[in-house]
Amino acid sequence: MANSDIWLDSLITKTPQEGRALAIIMARKTIGAIQTDPEKRKQMRPEYADATALLISSAQVVAIEFQTIAQANTY
Amino acid sequence: MANSDIWLDSLITKTPQEGRALAIIMARKTIGAIQTDPEKRKQMRPEYADATALLISSAQVVAIEFQTIAQANTY
Amino acid sequence: MANSDIWLDSLITKTPQEGRALAIIMARKTIGAIQTDPEKRKQMRPEYADATALLISSAQVVAIEFQTIAQANTY
Amino acid sequence: MANSDIWLDSLITKTPQEGRALAIIMARKTIGAIQTDPEKRKQMRPEYADATALLISSAQVVAIEFQTIAQANTY
Amino acid sequence: MANSDIWLDSLITKTPQEGRALAIIMARKTIGAIQTDPEKRKQMRPEYADATALLISSAQVVAIEFQTIAQANTY
Amino acid sequence: MANSDIWLDSLITKTPQEGRALAIIMARKTIGAIQTDPEKRKQMRPEYADATALLISSAQVVAIEFQTIAQANTY
Repeated sequence: MANSDIWLDSLITKTPQEGRALAIIMARKTIGAIQTDPEKRKQMRPEYADATALLISSAQVVAIEFQTIAQANTY
Repeated sequence: MANSDIWLDSLITKTPQEGRALAIIMARKTIGAIQTDPEKRKQMRPEYADATALLISSAQVVAIEFQTIAQANTY
Repeated sequence: MANSDIWLDSLITKTPQEGRALAIIMARKTIGAIQTDPEKRKQMRPEYADATALLISSAQVVAIEFQTIAQANTY
Repeated sequence: MANSDIWLDSLITKTPQEGRALAIIMARKTIGAIQTDPEKRKQMRPEYADATALLISSAQVVAIEFQTIAQANTY
Repeated sequence: MANSDIWLDSLITKTPQEGRALAIIMARKTIGAIQTDPEKRKQMRPEYADATALLISSAQVVAIEFQTIAQANTY
Repeated sequence: MANSDIWLDSLITKTPQEGRALAIIMARKTIGAIQTDPEKRKQMRPEYADATALLISSAQVVAIEFQTIAQANTY
């Protein structure tokens, strides 16, 4: 990972809604960590044929990440 | 996210059925947060070829969200 | 959701098998809540090409719902 | 469900391996409960094109069911 | 299942890495239990078109199995 | 698995972000353990048609692995 910045100090958030936002960040950071080549990430964008399916799959990743965050916060 | 309104104050709901409704809202809000362009969201709608698969995938997202809500509420 | 009837008072069931039945109801109710147009639901039915995949995906949703129910009941 | 026999009295099993067997039964019973028409179930069988994908999806369902069983048994 | 050997006495492993190995065994044993015909299992192998997708799906099954093992071991 | 090195001594990490990195390693090690032939792994790489879907699927595996790590660490 080229980007070695600390972006995840803690799973604790002030509100559940901030937890949702964190879940989306976590999902996006994973994509960036797996496919590190920005050129290839750009090529992938216009795949709109399966776009709805991709959105729903992404929502599933976010749901799992949020479950982890909710447990950490005992919301 | 253009919409910065607070929509998730708490995971606690009065009844399990309200928890189901919240799970569906959570799943929808994620879609809106990932694909923020309403024009593109509209283009995606008529993909009915895989519609049943998409519905089932959506139901899976809702099931995961609800699991989180149920744990928060110790239903 | 047009149907505002209370259908989920509690996740508690008398037996694990009733919990399975509830898990299937929960999965179906989600489908009905996402795709509210009965005409469109009907159009989707005859997609038998991927039917086995769809059945297995559905079984996955049921498995997640049942996991939630089992936790609520401490079976 | 035509078959109203009691098949799931308890999630408790004597050994983890019996828990695996139960997880497979639970996954199969769900398929039978969703697609109740045996004629249609038979038609679906020969879809070997995606057979590996279907097997892996099935294994995922079994993994989730087993997770529930393992929690019930505190293996 | 033709093979009635005991292969899963316990979910407890000495190290997390042995837990990973067990998770892979559990996933494979499920495949063998669902598709018992070795001839058909062989036919499925050369589906390399979706091979990356299948590998990732398999990794997901392993991740779920490992989650169960980790809980049993309180790693 | 040709590589019998110990790579997973513990699920405990100093920070949640290190937990994320471990989750990605765990997902990758599983791929290497299932498809042990490096030649075949290389052939799979250029499947960019479904690349976005594959990335999202991978993110899902990472999310599940991280959930396990977060539980072990009680983040």
